Amino acid sequence: MKRTTKLLNSIQRGQPQARRAASSNVSVFSGIQPTGIPHLGNYLGALRQWVGIQDNSPESAKLTFCIVDLHAITQPQEAEQLRKRKTELLATLLAVGLDPRRCTIFEQSRVPAHSELMWILSCVAPMGRLNRMTQWKSKLGVPSNQDALQEKATAASLKLGLLSYPVLQAADILIHKATHVPVGEDQSQHLELTREIASSFNKAFKKDVLKLPITLLSPAKRVMSLKDPTQKMTKSAADPASRILLTDSPKEVHGKLRKAITDSVPGPPTYDVQNRPGLSNLIEILAHVQRRQDFDEVAKEVSDLSLKAFKELVADAISEHLEPIRDEYEKIMAESNREVLHFVASEGERKARESAEETLAEVKEAVGL
Amino acid sequence: MKRTTKLLNSIQRGQPQARRAASSNVSVFSGIQPTGIPHLGNYLGALRQWVGIQDNSPESAKLTFCIVDLHAITQPQEAEQLRKRKTELLATLLAVGLDPRRCTIFEQSRVPAHSELMWILSCVAPMGRLNRMTQWKSKLGVPSNQDALQEKATAASLKLGLLSYPVLQAADILIHKATHVPVGEDQSQHLELTREIASSFNKAFKKDVLKLPITLLSPAKRVMSLKDPTQKMTKSAADPASRILLTDSPKEVHGKLRKAITDSVPGPPTYDVQNRPGLSNLIEILAHVQRRQDFDEVAKEVSDLSLKAFKELVADAISEHLEPIRDEYEKIMAESNREVLHFVASEGERKARESAEETLAEVKEAVGL
Repeated sequence: MKRTTKLLNSIQRGQPQARRAASSNVSVFSGIQPTGIPHLGNYLGALRQWVGIQDNSPESAKLTFCIVDLHAITQPQEAEQLRKRKTELLATLLAVGLDPRRCTIFEQSRVPAHSELMWILSCVAPMGRLNRMTQWKSKLGVPSNQDALQEKATAASLKLGLLSYPVLQAADILIHKATHVPVGEDQSQHLELTREIASSFNKAFKKDVLKLPITLLSPAKRVMSLKDPTQKMTKSAADPASRILLTDSPKEVHGKLRKAITDSVPGPPTYDVQNRPGLSNLIEILAHVQRRQDFDEVAKEVSDLSLKAFKELVADAISEHLEPIRDEYEKIMAESNREVLHFVASEGERKARESAEETLAEVKEAVGL
Repeated sequence: MKRTTKLLNSIQRGQPQARRAASSNVSVFSGIQPTGIPHLGNYLGALRQWVGIQDNSPESAKLTFCIVDLHAITQPQEAEQLRKRKTELLATLLAVGLDPRRCTIFEQSRVPAHSELMWILSCVAPMGRLNRMTQWKSKLGVPSNQDALQEKATAASLKLGLLSYPVLQAADILIHKATHVPVGEDQSQHLELTREIASSFNKAFKKDVLKLPITLLSPAKRVMSLKDPTQKMTKSAADPASRILLTDSPKEVHGKLRKAITDSVPGPPTYDVQNRPGLSNLIEILAHVQRRQDFDEVAKEVSDLSLKAFKELVADAISEHLEPIRDEYEKIMAESNREVLHFVASEGERKARESAEETLAEVKEAVGL
């Protein structure tokens, strides 16, 4: 608990760093949905990159990380579970090493300016562009060449929020004047739309109010399902053994690795994404937790192991890497520390409101509101 | 200025009536766009009805009237002009007799909960229903049977806001738990959608959070253009002589009436909507300003007048009716009273925020935000 208590004291003393950052030019923003404890794919693909950015940015950079609960509700949610998941996600973000003295960490629904800017941007966002986005189609399970409203059945089940949420995402980014947005590959289409909307807005209101952000792709692009290595590791897969959660115990990690789908090719493990996707995924995971990118080299180092021994090795490496995160998570989530968590959430809200309201005031001035 | 000063003093002393109303069951909400000084059609069709509701409601009824600037920006606006029009509209609402001690009169963009609820409702509002709304089609000038996205050219020019604004309208109404909504006939389709959205929300979240409002249609349904009596009197018609503004001087009113299109049927004025739409419109206007609905009887009373004399009579009746409104408007808009106007706007904002945030908190609780 030492670390969290230290954070708390430091926040209460004020955040000179965060204040200084507000006047700088670099502004990093990213968001994560509160849809359960993050898994290894979220961690290697996003959260670890966020911590890396935090640890390597100049003091002047403004860092903003958002728990996007307003995006989560584009899919049906159970209220109590959503609330619980938000708390768990906040605890996880602290456990992986995000420092609330250095970053603004907050819940989207607690900062009204996100929704306010979303509406204003709706008035410049063309329907034709939204209709060509692919993500709502994959969520509804319709072909990617289908129009939103041409199929009666699609139009009946498609809710406005699922079609329009890229505009809320644009608002999330633009309201904090982000210059750099770390995202997964599947989001680069939305970042492109964000830039288009920002530039349409600036043109329509003849003022450079909104900043066009740059996309930062994560080096760990592909962490695949342990049960189907042709699919990304995801919270929505039915089989929980398809993913490692950041809070999984060593026993759980080993159990899931043992059941991981590989192949029946005889001989030692080799790195061959095309023909041995399951094994290659495990080799990549092993490399990533060791902060390496030389997958072929890693494969060579394990080439004298049996499949069983290799899986044990990967499980050990993951468990070891997750241990401090899991320990910290449990400390933060202890009943006795709930007040600290609430305080961190309130402080995040306060800082995010300050940043968002500054931009919203400029936007309203430009629009005439 | 006496009246406005009296209002101000009374507001500063606090509003026992408004407070009591908050706990009652009747809640009236309506909105008007700040697209210029209201004309006679707005007045007879909406504003006078609002004042009537105010003067005849039990003290316990909650009355909320909104200047919907967020709706205005679904069409291109010039920032300075929009700001000016909002001030003029607020002054007009006071000039026609709305009493800020009795009602909550406020600007939509100053109450974030409207946009916040709009997003939440987006997650239950079906695209198919929005696509069937007719108003965005008439604003884009496309046939009412056309789909939003089937025509490439329509999809390119259609902005999300124009398609989704009935959901913002639903949020406006539902956030204040309106039970009664006075609207024009062209809005009854949107009220129906509002009820559907409210009931979908309550069903999805298993709580009766949102109230289903009743539509109140105005008795003065049709005030037609003076230049084309087959079209409604509207702010968007190119010819300013097609409409009487509430601030028109007697000279302007007489000038516009003299140029009003009637017909070349010989003989006295008669009431015949089908065959003599121009004359019938003038007879209806004359009746309305005298608070009468017996159009045939009114026609009989003027049947010995020449067309010219009849038009003079109507012009006199309108001028006389508008005189106290015009006088009050000028007093309120005087430079020396700007502070009063600002104070009224701030007080309206405060009361509207209180009402809206109460509902939003219940909504967030139900959703899990």
